[in-house]
Amino acid sequence: MKEVKGQFISINGERFYEIANYDAMQPFFISLASDTDLWMYLSSTGGLTCGRRSPGEALFPYYTDDKITEGYEFTGPRTIINDWIPFSDKQQPVYDISRKIAKSLVGNQIVFCEENHTLGLRFSYLWAPAGKHGWVRRATLENLTNQPVDIDLTDSLRNILPAGVDRKTQNEFSTLVDGYKRTEIVGNLGLFRMEAILVDRAEPSESLTCNTVYCLGLPNADYSKTESKGVRGAFIAHSLIHSFTHSLTWYNVLDVSQDAVAVHALLHFAQQPDAIEQIEAAMTQSTETLRRIVAQNDGVQQTGDEANDARHFANVLFNTMRGGYYLNYPPKTDTEDLPLTFGRRHGDPSRPWNLFSIRVQDENGKPVVAYQGNWRDIFQNWEALSYSYPLYINHIIAKFLNATTADGYNPYRISNEGIDYEVIEPENPWSNIGYWGDHQIIYLLKLLEISYKHNPEKLRSLLQARQYAFANVPYRLKTYAEIVADPKNSIRFDDEEHKRIQAGHPTPQPLTTMADKLLITLLTKLSNFIPNAGIWMNTLRPEWNDANNALVGYGASMVTLCYMRRYVAFLQMLVQTDVQIATETLDFLRAIRHAYLNGNIKQFTDIVGTAGENYRAKVYGGLSGERQTLELEELQEFCTATLHKIDESIRANKREDGLYEAYNLIRFTDHTIEISHLYPMLEGQVAVLSSGLLNGEESADLLDAMRASELYREDQRSYMLYPNRRRAAFLEMNNLPEEAKQLPVVQKYIGSILKQDCDGGIHFDAKYRNANELPDELKDLYESIFHHHAFTGRSGTFYKYEGLGCIYWHMVSKLLLAVGETIERDGNERLREQYFAIREGIGAHKSPAEYGAFPFDAYSHTPTMAGAQQPGMTGQVKEDIISRWFELGVSVRDGQITFHPTMLRDADFVNGELRFHYCGTEIIYRKSPITKNQSPMTLSREDSAHLFARDGVIKQLIIEV
Amino acid sequence: MKEVKGQFISINGERFYEIANYDAMQPFFISLASDTDLWMYLSSTGGLTCGRRSPGEALFPYYTDDKITEGYEFTGPRTIINDWIPFSDKQQPVYDISRKIAKSLVGNQIVFCEENHTLGLRFSYLWAPAGKHGWVRRATLENLTNQPVDIDLTDSLRNILPAGVDRKTQNEFSTLVDGYKRTEIVGNLGLFRMEAILVDRAEPSESLTCNTVYCLGLPNADYSKTESKGVRGAFIAHSLIHSFTHSLTWYNVLDVSQDAVAVHALLHFAQQPDAIEQIEAAMTQSTETLRRIVAQNDGVQQTGDEANDARHFANVLFNTMRGGYYLNYPPKTDTEDLPLTFGRRHGDPSRPWNLFSIRVQDENGKPVVAYQGNWRDIFQNWEALSYSYPLYINHIIAKFLNATTADGYNPYRISNEGIDYEVIEPENPWSNIGYWGDHQIIYLLKLLEISYKHNPEKLRSLLQARQYAFANVPYRLKTYAEIVADPKNSIRFDDEEHKRIQAGHPTPQPLTTMADKLLITLLTKLSNFIPNAGIWMNTLRPEWNDANNALVGYGASMVTLCYMRRYVAFLQMLVQTDVQIATETLDFLRAIRHAYLNGNIKQFTDIVGTAGENYRAKVYGGLSGERQTLELEELQEFCTATLHKIDESIRANKREDGLYEAYNLIRFTDHTIEISHLYPMLEGQVAVLSSGLLNGEESADLLDAMRASELYREDQRSYMLYPNRRRAAFLEMNNLPEEAKQLPVVQKYIGSILKQDCDGGIHFDAKYRNANELPDELKDLYESIFHHHAFTGRSGTFYKYEGLGCIYWHMVSKLLLAVGETIERDGNERLREQYFAIREGIGAHKSPAEYGAFPFDAYSHTPTMAGAQQPGMTGQVKEDIISRWFELGVSVRDGQITFHPTMLRDADFVNGELRFHYCGTEIIYRKSPITKNQSPMTLSREDSAHLFARDGVIKQLIIEV
Repeated sequence: MKEVKGQFISINGERFYEIANYDAMQPFFISLASDTDLWMYLSSTGGLTCGRRSPGEALFPYYTDDKITEGYEFTGPRTIINDWIPFSDKQQPVYDISRKIAKSLVGNQIVFCEENHTLGLRFSYLWAPAGKHGWVRRATLENLTNQPVDIDLTDSLRNILPAGVDRKTQNEFSTLVDGYKRTEIVGNLGLFRMEAILVDRAEPSESLTCNTVYCLGLPNADYSKTESKGVRGAFIAHSLIHSFTHSLTWYNVLDVSQDAVAVHALLHFAQQPDAIEQIEAAMTQSTETLRRIVAQNDGVQQTGDEANDARHFANVLFNTMRGGYYLNYPPKTDTEDLPLTFGRRHGDPSRPWNLFSIRVQDENGKPVVAYQGNWRDIFQNWEALSYSYPLYINHIIAKFLNATTADGYNPYRISNEGIDYEVIEPENPWSNIGYWGDHQIIYLLKLLEISYKHNPEKLRSLLQARQYAFANVPYRLKTYAEIVADPKNSIRFDDEEHKRIQAGHPTPQPLTTMADKLLITLLTKLSNFIPNAGIWMNTLRPEWNDANNALVGYGASMVTLCYMRRYVAFLQMLVQTDVQIATETLDFLRAIRHAYLNGNIKQFTDIVGTAGENYRAKVYGGLSGERQTLELEELQEFCTATLHKIDESIRANKREDGLYEAYNLIRFTDHTIEISHLYPMLEGQVAVLSSGLLNGEESADLLDAMRASELYREDQRSYMLYPNRRRAAFLEMNNLPEEAKQLPVVQKYIGSILKQDCDGGIHFDAKYRNANELPDELKDLYESIFHHHAFTGRSGTFYKYEGLGCIYWHMVSKLLLAVGETIERDGNERLREQYFAIREGIGAHKSPAEYGAFPFDAYSHTPTMAGAQQPGMTGQVKEDIISRWFELGVSVRDGQITFHPTMLRDADFVNGELRFHYCGTEIIYRKSPITKNQSPMTLSREDSAHLFARDGVIKQLIIEV
Repeated sequence: MKEVKGQFISINGERFYEIANYDAMQPFFISLASDTDLWMYLSSTGGLTCGRRSPGEALFPYYTDDKITEGYEFTGPRTIINDWIPFSDKQQPVYDISRKIAKSLVGNQIVFCEENHTLGLRFSYLWAPAGKHGWVRRATLENLTNQPVDIDLTDSLRNILPAGVDRKTQNEFSTLVDGYKRTEIVGNLGLFRMEAILVDRAEPSESLTCNTVYCLGLPNADYSKTESKGVRGAFIAHSLIHSFTHSLTWYNVLDVSQDAVAVHALLHFAQQPDAIEQIEAAMTQSTETLRRIVAQNDGVQQTGDEANDARHFANVLFNTMRGGYYLNYPPKTDTEDLPLTFGRRHGDPSRPWNLFSIRVQDENGKPVVAYQGNWRDIFQNWEALSYSYPLYINHIIAKFLNATTADGYNPYRISNEGIDYEVIEPENPWSNIGYWGDHQIIYLLKLLEISYKHNPEKLRSLLQARQYAFANVPYRLKTYAEIVADPKNSIRFDDEEHKRIQAGHPTPQPLTTMADKLLITLLTKLSNFIPNAGIWMNTLRPEWNDANNALVGYGASMVTLCYMRRYVAFLQMLVQTDVQIATETLDFLRAIRHAYLNGNIKQFTDIVGTAGENYRAKVYGGLSGERQTLELEELQEFCTATLHKIDESIRANKREDGLYEAYNLIRFTDHTIEISHLYPMLEGQVAVLSSGLLNGEESADLLDAMRASELYREDQRSYMLYPNRRRAAFLEMNNLPEEAKQLPVVQKYIGSILKQDCDGGIHFDAKYRNANELPDELKDLYESIFHHHAFTGRSGTFYKYEGLGCIYWHMVSKLLLAVGETIERDGNERLREQYFAIREGIGAHKSPAEYGAFPFDAYSHTPTMAGAQQPGMTGQVKEDIISRWFELGVSVRDGQITFHPTMLRDADFVNGELRFHYCGTEIIYRKSPITKNQSPMTLSREDSAHLFARDGVIKQLIIEV
């Protein structure tokens, strides 16, 4: 086997990471970025899809990653050089070849290279975006010998899609779509289109745009096949090169949806003598623009550790692709308006259920404000963005709070046009309603913490401002008794209100203060607090991660409780005066407070649950708008009491192995609530570490316990979401135990619901997928075999994504961040080492063979049977960006920036320097030859404000460390 | 290039058609049949999908044919013999190989064979169904030399689907499905399953069945990889064979959806010493059963022309797979009950919008009555079936008539459970409503003709029986004025009636007589008769073919008018007494008759249209149930007058080139109806030939004109649906003419709706797909460029199916049948030659290279850029079965069978004999040495009745010819 080897290299002045012998690795999937709406996903096999804006404007079919990976022999570029077919496993003379793949650190270019040692030839091609020109493929053939050679070259792009085929049609109807395809070659330009647009009605539907490909720079190029119909499109150039020496470079330029005007322009352009220069210039421009976008979001660092720099750049790039960047800064208004551009929903061929749409410009080429995402995703990316653009933090908080409902939850989706909630679609079996309640506390808190650090007075002043709205979502949580009786069916959809919302006349709700909002969010959670179990998850939607979706109804989240601990402590610190809140909120608070006087779990839960019900009854009836004063003393006392209750519960959830429970199962009985435990989960440990309950030494103990636990995966030096386990083999499943076989109930159902095999084994009929359809008298027997009470959700039944054996990298990076925060709070040497050990697992320094992909790119998860999966827009990047500020020793407190790098090591410096950008300003750490432990360097509030405002007054900071 | 060569061969006593060097052909697609619910579609590349019942129970992914074809390198069987990989284009030493493919004439087995001339080895494998065992792959390796050789063999089946993945999920979510996959190898048995069934709800969903594969007969087989998770399933056997000589055969047996009981049984079975014998026996049994099913439907013939015999067998096979065969015969009741089994809807990977489901047995293995199909499909297959089982013909007619609505049309779908009509689904843009009105007349007529031939008295007696129901379809055709004003929007959906139907309480309709039914069908068509134009198509759905769908509203069908000619003539002959019909029908008839007095097209159309409106008004209001006598004289006079009007119109539609118009375009103006013509269509010629209007010589002239016309495709020696034409190239489209550029209206919209290119050309903005969204002042200009008035539908915009340049074989076979009927009616030598010329084009005798597939299999169509497409269940098979009776000289008249073979040629006889089955009885034609032109041999009514009843009284007929 050839040795896989990774290294940083330069190509034409750009830095790349090159993997030699990548073909000895399992194929891996890659995302290329661009500065515009050009997107590309490709496999290391060479199979690819790319286009502009969305999968509906693709140049090669937008299939799932498995199909793209295996499609390389018939989709995408293919070059035949005499009888040598680089990057193919097709029949050809057996040559001694070696392959390399290299991706630019800016993230927008990739090079495939195959060297034919037998022939002394090297062929390579690069993919790069070139702005308005589209995607460029630059191919290079080199003669590595001194001997001239005659070359018969066929260069092609295969399976090029016509314009105007949406994703579903590409997928399901490709054979029909083929029948509509028309390819024309006009000179060196290929036009790919449908003869008509597929529509449902019997009316003409002209297809007046085409996807285009042209070729530049290929000598004696012959495009013999001028037209094809009813078959897949291909662009084929043929060239005979006599006595070829040195090297030859040529270009394909690809774009989508070109109309007649554009095609006429292309025909001229493709004949211009400087066309190649213009394309090269556009490629360079495209790279520079993308680098500038990332740079202004503080993604460019120059340290002694290029792997770290590259990873940080990629993290910022993907965070920006997700959350966007600001078109105006500093903010001119004091609203929730966020002038963000460049963002898009995540979704790639590894995740066929998520779809992206990139809108960066309007029809006239002007940048547009556009963002969209599930709120659980987008606020994360904005959190990381806010470290670099802190003056929008209160806008983001306003966006968050205005997207909170009066009954205390957040709707499904956030966009620049407002909020969006789910409705039941009778035809769509996957449609559902409900509130995801989990990240709500911690995401809001992290935003508040950023705001507080940068400007505590401002945040305190907003506490009293009556300017926050309630999101109107027509979900109606049922009464406490109803939810107890059927916690998987806890919400009524208010059709009437839904219609009013759609008609633009929702029931008006009074504005309220931030203080009120913050309390409602907390009290709502507390109204589902089951002591020693956690926060009862009864709003139909799962906590993180979705794969544990079956916990809904009978699960309780210790994770949320841990984050509430931090939230309450923050609130207690933040609020230093009496505050005006709604009468209803005050009543709610007092009702909750009342529960603390009671020791019994059931009674406690009944009281807080009823408090929630009473509060909701008022909310759903229409808030009165009445205000009352919550006196500081009462609030502080409430916080203290709450913290006490929470801490009791967290401590009660410490396991014997030193880990903490993350989620518990509950079962209501007449007089109590039974709590049972699940296996440990990484998320639970992260939450405890983040909660602030543990001191430095306790935290280090927990981290040691984690490394000794089944959560740890040795081969990746990192942590799974939960211990891997072997699921029963087919023959081990669905077997009645020997002792049950003679039961009368078994005998009764043999031959109907129960079936006996030729070995005497008895099995439930395979059509029963759970106990719901079984007669009651068989349910216990079924449960004894299938253990559905402990079913946590689909994560326990698959092997990708959040599944069995997988490392879900976002959660590992949350762990890293939590350890970093602990170090800031109560650091010790053990934690420092643990921090670096976790970071090593994350991958920037892993070999490609170990990581399974380019190690500088974040990927969503790593299953057991393959390398890193699903490139790019994982939530991990946000955590790692924030951790990076910690590593660089940049912190803000009370509006003042402090530089105090305690985590940096000698290797982080190059020639005694380390450069990075912070709020757009270049910061240079210069190693002081004198002292080893430099004291912190803190900027004045005024100087800090210049940085926060990015006003250019401070151009550079050089700090001796 | 290797020479492609086809021949009939025997393998183990079964006849096969073998294509040598098939790999020099374009890949083609094949359907394998079975006697059970086992189905398989495969490409000549070896890529395949197969399973039981439906695409949701597949063993390999059910993708469209293009993906199956190209998937052969990673899906399906793969054998590696030392370093030789048969059937692969993957990198391997360059061997001298040749390949063959052979399909059994029974249609259920296929053999792939590759011979390695370099190594002296031959490898082949066969696919065959084996009933309850599932699909069998039998692989054989032969050493063709005298030298023993050591073999390192790896034999695998790749990309095996787990049980429980529906078609959509396979297609769109394959990467997610992979994550759920679990493969276990238990001994020589592979189990392929999902770890859970994908469901929408957060509840456990146990996956308790698996797809299974086991291997038998491979010596020293090693199944080393016992488990895989989260990746595609594969079954891999490895074997080392020392000093291999002669040959070795081994088996894979594959099945779907096996539960625990079945798997236990399999584990035992796969260890039995005679397992291979049992499998072989089941394979043989499966072939015998299938042959028996086809034989009992008269599919087995033994003539001197094996190609014809094979094609006839395949035609009957596919006709039976579509329409089914009878479980009981002769019929025991006199209802519309049809005890059919074995039928299924068509649909295969070439047609992703049609889906099949095969239900031949219930859970206990008992044959079930089940059929389902669009009425336009299924009655055709029953028509062919009725030649062999004539005693159900009146049941089929009853089924047809009971599925006719009171307003005179047929609903969408017929099944053993009743009728089914389309409803508008707001979420589904492809949903639509309306009546297909075209085949109605001719299909019904052909059924009536069969009935009349076999038993005219019986049919006449049914005319007066008041036992026929009206199908209840809640479509309400609008008034005549409304339809004239907007003929593409002619039907209101009656929601109230729809609800009543769904609730099981439709508005009751009185039963009526067959005579009434036959008249209503005719009068409804006449109410849309536009003289010289045809039957106005205003019921929202296209005529045949669907691809001309844009004719709806402004098209008029001469095709239907031609068939009405034959229908009226038949009616006139059939009805010989006064008949009782509904009062409403009689009024309708008289109102129509009134129109004949008028010469002006517009007035005629107004009168018949208003007659239709008045009739419908009564129908929709509820039929009175009143009856009146239609006197014979009035009916006969009506028929004579109608024939006169129709004949005038047909003759007026003769073109200068001797062809006839098929469809015309109409445009209502204030005082007249403008008629414009389209290009000629094959269908129009078929209809004229079938109408009975032309005599033998006129028919022969028409056929000569057709061969000289653009309808003829030389390379296939056959006819396209309409002349091929070149669509404009991109640069030729959407250009404003030079003279229009200075128009004020053009100048007004330049830069908005009109765009100017750098060469000065002006184009409509590409977003306008038709004129609907344009301002009125631009519509004429748009029309002058795009000519949408003459848009006939999507067939003019694609290159497959009914598209440009395609031969649609069903229509060619309709032509053949029409010529055959003409010969029966008024034959001459020219027609006889023309008949054979058309038949030669159809394919049984074509070479595989010319045909593009196995020539004995019917395929739906042949485009210009590839061979025959879409194997099997085309309507063509029904026409060819009926034509075959004509060729054999079998006819029925007045209940008496006549054998008078005038079309047979010497080559049709073998050893002076020709054998076939008719109504299950073997008929032997024996060449008489004496006379050349034998006179017809006619059986008595009594003897004929024995054959029709299949009562076994007549075991064999030997007829000297």
